[in-house]
Amino acid sequence: MNKPSIPKGTRDFSTVEMAKRNYLFDTIRSVYALYGYQQIETPAIETLQTLLGKYGEEGDKLLFKVLNSGDYLNKVTDEELARRDSLHLASRISEKGLRYDLTVPFARYVVMHREELQLPFKRYQIQPVWRADRPQKGRYREFYQCDADVVGSDSLLNEVELMQIVDTVFSRLGIRVQIKINNRKILTGIAEVIGEADKITVITVAIDKLDKIGPDGVNAELRDKGLSDDAIGKLQPIISLSGTNDEKLQTISDVLKDSEVGLKGVEETRFILDTLKTAGLNNEIQLDLTLARGLNYYTGAIFEVKALDTPMGSITGGGRYDNLTGIFGMPGLSGVGISFGADRIYDVLNTLELFPKEAVTGTRLLFINFGEKEAAYCMSMARNARNAGIKTEIYPDAAKMKKQMAYANIKAIPFVAIAGENEIKEGKVMLKNMTTGEQTMVTSDELIDIVG
Amino acid sequence: MNKPSIPKGTRDFSTVEMAKRNYLFDTIRSVYALYGYQQIETPAIETLQTLLGKYGEEGDKLLFKVLNSGDYLNKVTDEELARRDSLHLASRISEKGLRYDLTVPFARYVVMHREELQLPFKRYQIQPVWRADRPQKGRYREFYQCDADVVGSDSLLNEVELMQIVDTVFSRLGIRVQIKINNRKILTGIAEVIGEADKITVITVAIDKLDKIGPDGVNAELRDKGLSDDAIGKLQPIISLSGTNDEKLQTISDVLKDSEVGLKGVEETRFILDTLKTAGLNNEIQLDLTLARGLNYYTGAIFEVKALDTPMGSITGGGRYDNLTGIFGMPGLSGVGISFGADRIYDVLNTLELFPKEAVTGTRLLFINFGEKEAAYCMSMARNARNAGIKTEIYPDAAKMKKQMAYANIKAIPFVAIAGENEIKEGKVMLKNMTTGEQTMVTSDELIDIVG
Repeated sequence: MNKPSIPKGTRDFSTVEMAKRNYLFDTIRSVYALYGYQQIETPAIETLQTLLGKYGEEGDKLLFKVLNSGDYLNKVTDEELARRDSLHLASRISEKGLRYDLTVPFARYVVMHREELQLPFKRYQIQPVWRADRPQKGRYREFYQCDADVVGSDSLLNEVELMQIVDTVFSRLGIRVQIKINNRKILTGIAEVIGEADKITVITVAIDKLDKIGPDGVNAELRDKGLSDDAIGKLQPIISLSGTNDEKLQTISDVLKDSEVGLKGVEETRFILDTLKTAGLNNEIQLDLTLARGLNYYTGAIFEVKALDTPMGSITGGGRYDNLTGIFGMPGLSGVGISFGADRIYDVLNTLELFPKEAVTGTRLLFINFGEKEAAYCMSMARNARNAGIKTEIYPDAAKMKKQMAYANIKAIPFVAIAGENEIKEGKVMLKNMTTGEQTMVTSDELIDIVG
Repeated sequence: MNKPSIPKGTRDFSTVEMAKRNYLFDTIRSVYALYGYQQIETPAIETLQTLLGKYGEEGDKLLFKVLNSGDYLNKVTDEELARRDSLHLASRISEKGLRYDLTVPFARYVVMHREELQLPFKRYQIQPVWRADRPQKGRYREFYQCDADVVGSDSLLNEVELMQIVDTVFSRLGIRVQIKINNRKILTGIAEVIGEADKITVITVAIDKLDKIGPDGVNAELRDKGLSDDAIGKLQPIISLSGTNDEKLQTISDVLKDSEVGLKGVEETRFILDTLKTAGLNNEIQLDLTLARGLNYYTGAIFEVKALDTPMGSITGGGRYDNLTGIFGMPGLSGVGISFGADRIYDVLNTLELFPKEAVTGTRLLFINFGEKEAAYCMSMARNARNAGIKTEIYPDAAKMKKQMAYANIKAIPFVAIAGENEIKEGKVMLKNMTTGEQTMVTSDELIDIVG
C-alpha cells in the first residue's frame, strides 16, 4: 500500500491552524458586516464558458478543468483524438472548471441575479480558489480569498469606507500597516500630459526604483525605454514627488493642469484622503504614484496595504473598476472592492506572534476518567459546565492518569478536574489549574466561576 | 453573448441564504466545540489514489476528476487514444479528483499526521463535497457535510456524547426530533441465532415494513427472500418487538442468549441508553432494529435522527466503525462519528419557520445621505455606532429619499437615521424605527442605546 499524500500545492489545516485561520476570517468577516457587507457563496465549479477568457491567456492555462462525467469521449471524433491537441480536446471533454478567483463569479452572480438584487449591492465572499500555478513558498494551488465589493454606486464614500474597513481589520489584528493609495486617472493624466499615453507602466516601474537608483537612474531608465527628453523633463516634479499627501496632490495638480482626467483623479484622491482625515484612521495612508496594480482592470482609486513590522509583499489590495459585469452583457455597473490576502496575513500574525492565546484555545476543562462510576459523576458536572458555555471534555477511557494528564498538556487545556471517592462523597471535584499547578476542591458552581 | 449560468446541481447562496446557513453551521460548530471537538480542513482536491476504490464501483463513477494541467496528452500513446476507453484514458489524463465525502479525507489525514496527533483525536469538519450524481430536488452535485468523529478510543462515552451533541444541536435549533439507535452487533447476533448470517439486510428491510404490511406481510416477504420457516419462527419476538427501550433490550437479550456478539451489542446499547437517561436529553431516543444504515461500514452503534414535525428523511446519522484508517495502512484504530445533513436541516428550519429573525438581519442602522456635508456629519455618528458593534451603513449616494428608504425596506434594516440642517445644528439625528414608524430626535449615545 502506498503512503497517502495530497496533491502538491494543497494543504491540510490542523486544529491549531484552523483555530488561527478562523480567528483571522472571523475578524475580517465581522468588520465587513459592521459596514453592511453581506456574505454570498458561489459554487466551486463554474462553467468554462464563465471562466475562460477572463484572466488572459496565462490565466486560461492555469484553470483547473473538470472532466465531464460518464462516457466523456462519446462525442469526440476519431480525428479529433488523433490530432492530439490538448487544448482542443479539453474543450470537448470538459465543460466545467474550478473557480479561479472570486471576482468573475461575483460578476456572473450579479448578472444572473440582477432582478433580485438591491443596488448598491455590498457583498463579501470568503471561499477557496484554485490555480494550476507552479507551487512555491507561500504560493498554493488551493487558497482562500476574502473579498468585499460594492457595485452599483459611483460614490467615493465607498472607497472611504473600504479604507476604514482595512484600518479596522488591521487594528483589531494588531498589525501596524501602511495603506498606499493611487488613482488610475492620475496615471492616465501624467501619460497624457507628457504625450506618452502608452508608457504608463514603464513610467511607474521606473519611478518605483527611485529609492534604489536615484533620480538620475530613473531618468536614464526612462530614456532607455524610449521617452523623449521633453517628456522626461515634464516628469521631473513627479519623479521628485515628496512631502505630505496634500503637498503631493498640489504638485501633481500643477503638473496635470491641462489634463481633465488627471485633475479628476486628483480631486477623487483629495476627497478620499480629506474624508479619511476626519475618520481618524489608526494607520497611515500614503499617496504613492508607483502603485500600479492591475492597471488594465482598475479605472479609479487603487489601494494596497503593507505590514510595517515584517517584510512581506502586499497583504491587501483593491480598487475601483468601471465595468465589472460588462463581460457578461450587463454594462455600466461601477464597482469598488478589496481583497485581504489571508495566507500572507496569517504568516504576518504568526511571525509577529499576534494570534491571541484565547483564539487558539480549544477545550478549557478536562475531566479525568477513573472508571464507570466516576465518569458518570463527572458527566453531570460536565453538563453544568457546558450549559455555562465552557468547552469541556471527559477523557473517554479510564486510561492511566499520566496518559490523561499528558493529553491535557499537549492540547494546552488550562483546567483539569479530578473526582475520586472523596470528591464524590463531598459532591465536589478537585480542580487543577494547569498553568499554576494550584489545586482546589470546588463545587460545580465554583468550578464554573473559576473556569468560565 | 450567452447568458451566464452555473453547472447543474450547483447553487449560488444569496445573502439571506448565507445568513441562514451561517446560523445553522455556527450552531453545529459551537456545540461540537463545547464537547471538545476541534476543526480541521482538508483540500477540495485529493489524489485519485486516495479517492478511488473507497466508495464502491458506483462511487468511483460519481467522482469528479480534474484534468491534469499542461499538455495532459503528453504521455498517452496513440494506441491508448484510439481505444476510446473513457475509464482507462481518465486514469492517464487525470490524477486528482474532488472530495466525495469528509470521511475518507479524514482517514487519510489521520494516517498522514499520525505522529502529530494526540489520541483520542476529536475532530469536526464542515466543508463541501462533490458528487456527479443526477441532480434532483434536494440532491446536489456540490453540498456541505458537517462531520464530527473521534478516533482512537473504544469508550462508549463517545457514543453517549455524540447523542448529547445531537440533542443539544436540535434543541438549540428548536427542531423536535426522534433519535433512533441500533447496533450492528445485535443485527449480526440475530442473523447468527437464526442461522442466516448473510440475510441481515433482507431481514431489516422486511421488518422496516411492519407498519405498512403487518407481521404476516413481513413473514411472507422473509419467506419470499428464502428464509427458512425455522428462522422465521425464531424471528417472531424480534418482528413483534415493542415497548420501552428496556423492554425491547430484554426481549432481544433473550433471543440472543446464545450469541456472544449479539449480547455484546445489547450490552453496549444498554450502557448508552442508561447513561443517556441520567444525561437528561430533551429529545426521545428509541431503539430501532430496522435501522441499518451503512451496514458494511459500521461495526457497533448506529444512529439516525428524524424531525418530528415535518416529513423529511434522515437529517443526521452516524455510528461506530472499527477500521477507518485500515484502507491507508494503519489498522486497529476505532472511531465513531456523526454527520449533520445540512441541506435537509436547512429545509426543516425553513418549513417550520424556525430561523430566528436576528440571525438573518444584516445591517441594523442606515444613515440617509443628503449630500456631502450631511454625509460627513453622519460618518462620525456611524463611527460611534460601529464602535458600539452596531452594523451600520451610510447610503453612499445622495439619491432620492424614496430610493434610500426603499433600500432600507427591502434589506429589512430596522432603523434609519436622518440628519438635515436642524439635526446637525443640534448635534443630533432623527431616528426612525422602521417597524413602528416612530421617529425620535436623539444624540449619538441615545441612538446607540436604542439601536444597539
